Parts: sequence; C-alpha cells; structure tokens
Amino acid sequence: MRISELSRRSGVPTATIKYYLREGLLPPGRATAATQAEYDDTHLRRLRLVRALIGVRGLSVSATKDVLGAVAAHAGERHQVLGLVLGARPVDEDGEPAPAPGGTEVDTLIGELGWQVSEHAPSRAVLGETLETLRSLGEEISHEALLGYAALAERTAVLDLDQLDPHADPVDQAESALLRTVLLEPALLALRRLAQEHESARRNT
Amino acid sequence: MRISELSRRSGVPTATIKYYLREGLLPPGRATAATQAEYDDTHLRRLRLVRALIGVRGLSVSATKDVLGAVAAHAGERHQVLGLVLGARPVDEDGEPAPAPGGTEVDTLIGELGWQVSEHAPSRAVLGETLETLRSLGEEISHEALLGYAALAERTAVLDLDQLDPHADPVDQAESALLRTVLLEPALLALRRLAQEHESARRNT
Repeated sequence: MRISELSRRSGVPTATIKYYLREGLLPPGRATAATQAEYDDTHLRRLRLVRALIGVRGLSVSATKDVLGAVAAHAGERHQVLGLVLGARPVDEDGEPAPAPGGTEVDTLIGELGWQVSEHAPSRAVLGETLETLRSLGEEISHEALLGYAALAERTAVLDLDQLDPHADPVDQAESALLRTVLLEPALLALRRLAQEHESARRNT
Repeated sequence: MRISELSRRSGVPTATIKYYLREGLLPPGRATAATQAEYDDTHLRRLRLVRALIGVRGLSVSATKDVLGAVAAHAGERHQVLGLVLGARPVDEDGEPAPAPGGTEVDTLIGELGWQVSEHAPSRAVLGETLETLRSLGEEISHEALLGYAALAERTAVLDLDQLDPHADPVDQAESALLRTVLLEPALLALRRLAQEHESARRNT
C-alpha cells in the first residue's frame, strides 16, 4: 500500500508517519520509485504499536525506539516481549531510566509480595505518592489492607494476561496487552464505584 | 475560631468560605459582633466534606447542596449517609439527574450481578463507553472476563468499606469513604500494572 493508505488505515497523519520513518521507529517501505514506497501489514502493525507506546503509554520517541529495539531482539520470546512492553517506562533526557523511588514502604511491600518488577517501574512512585497523600489527609491505609489490595491486583493481572490470544504473534500480543492495560482502567474504577454503592446498600438492609 | 483560622485549618481561602456561607453549604457561625462570627469543629468538618464533594467528586455547588440536605435528613442512619455520598452524582441544569445510560450490556451485567445501584450512577456510562472503545479497537472484553473483573471489584469494595471506622460519626465516615474511594484510585491502578509486570515475568520462567 502507499503511505496515503497506510495513513488512512492507521488513522495516523502522513506527516507523522514520515517523522516516524525518519526517526527509525518504522522500517522503510519497499522503494518503487525515487519518491515512492510500498508498505505492508507489518508496517501497519508496527505503527499501531508505536502509537500505543507513545499515545497510550506516554513514552518519548527515543524511549519508544529503545523498547522497539529490545522487542526486535527478543521477537520470538513471547513473555520477554510482553514484559518489555508492559514494563516500558519513560527515560530522562540522558537516556537513563527516570528514577522512580516509591519509598521504603513500597519496596518493603513488593519484597514481601515477592513481585519481580523493575526498580524503575513508574508505578512504584505513583503508589508511594498516593499512600503519602492519603496519610497527609489522615486516611492512612494499613499495611494489612495494602496486602489485600495487592492480592486483588494480582488476580486482576492474571485475568488480564489470561485473555491474551496465546497463538497471536508476540508483538501483536504485547500491543493488545498494552491497549487493554490502559484502556480498561476507567472500566475497572467504574466497577469499583458501582460495587461500593451496592455493598453500602447491602450492608444497610 | 474566626473565619481566618477556619481558612488556615481547612486550607480553603476565606473568599471561598464566604461563598459557601452565602450559598448555604456551610451553616452560619455564631455572631459575636455585627461583622464577626465564631466557627467550630462542626464547620471545619462540614467544609472538608464540601471540598470532597466538589473537588474530589466533581459535583456542582447546587448538587452538593442537595446531597448535604439529604445527608442532614438521615444524619443518624450510617449506611443511608454512606450511600448518599458514594452515590452522589452530577445533575443537569434543571436539577434533574443527568441521564447516564450504560447501554444494554451494562444493564444486563448489573442485573446478573444482582447489584443495587442507582440507574443514574455515572459509572454505568463510563463502563459502557470504555467497553465500546475497546470493542472499536478490536479488543472486545468477553462477558465471562467482565464477570471476573466485577467479582474482583466486589471484593475491593468490601475491603474499602471494612476499613471505615465503625464508631465514627456517620458524616465523618462518609467523608472518609469518599476520600478513600477517589484518592486510592491511582494506587490501585499502579498495583495492577506492577502485578502485570510480575505475572508476565512469572509466566516467562
């Protein structure tokens, strides 16, 4: 397909596609003339992954390039690819992973749970900051309650990963995991709010 | 205390407190002079609840007034108050509850779960729209998976409500529930992302 069709099918403007080509985020098409190239479905798929990493996951162009390079190096190893994409994190300007300390409380929790997660995972900091905000408002979450929430998060993650098509191409599968992770978030929060209203009503009767 | 101290202790600007007094969101203080009044801890507590409803829950001033009126009418009934605050929803300009249809899929789900939730709960629409977005991206969530997520949300809600101090004043308790509902959200999403990274690593080994 021509670049115009790639644009139409992906919903990404031609100018953006050209920028990704220049930056090496997208492999070049097959040249058919001096100023013309043919693209195929592998370009479309790669473009969707790039959009998911940048638009959904919030990575910079250079961080996206790093993730794609790592994905390419492990293309056949399903869980490696999945881990690379799910663990993808913003890096600072020097290309170093942005430090994301969640604080001792979060380190202790993750150690206790036995979770294998990158020490730079941005979610560590989000967790630490949120607990700190609640504490400052006099709403401390007890360690026991935190373990309860973590156990439920573990079961949610199992449900998330169980839904991935085991026969899909590893890169497609990672893209699907990324989209579901981020896009499902409002639905999970909505379910919790509805469940709270129900549980409150149930306790009242 | 004077209005200046109420402002200092609540972090709410004096001008905003005066506006809430004019709108009847806050009961008047005890007049000590023609232009001076004394406020007490009940004002401070009420002010925190108003801030939570407006700032955290996103209600309009008039919707907040309605919720507070309903809370006052049921002040002694713990779960009534909790339900009123947790179920609080934006209303449209005519004072009618904003319609929040989640679509047939959401109605069916809630019916199947046996959840008692208001037909105007805004989370219904959020849930319906999110499922629709995922479907449009080719990432449909199966009904079975949705039931799984709902079951986990139910357990999360039980954990949420179990943490409330059963001896607290019902209005304090409702305020605490509201703060925890909203402020804990980023932490729950962060736990899910960390758990996904861990689960992906676990499946890889």
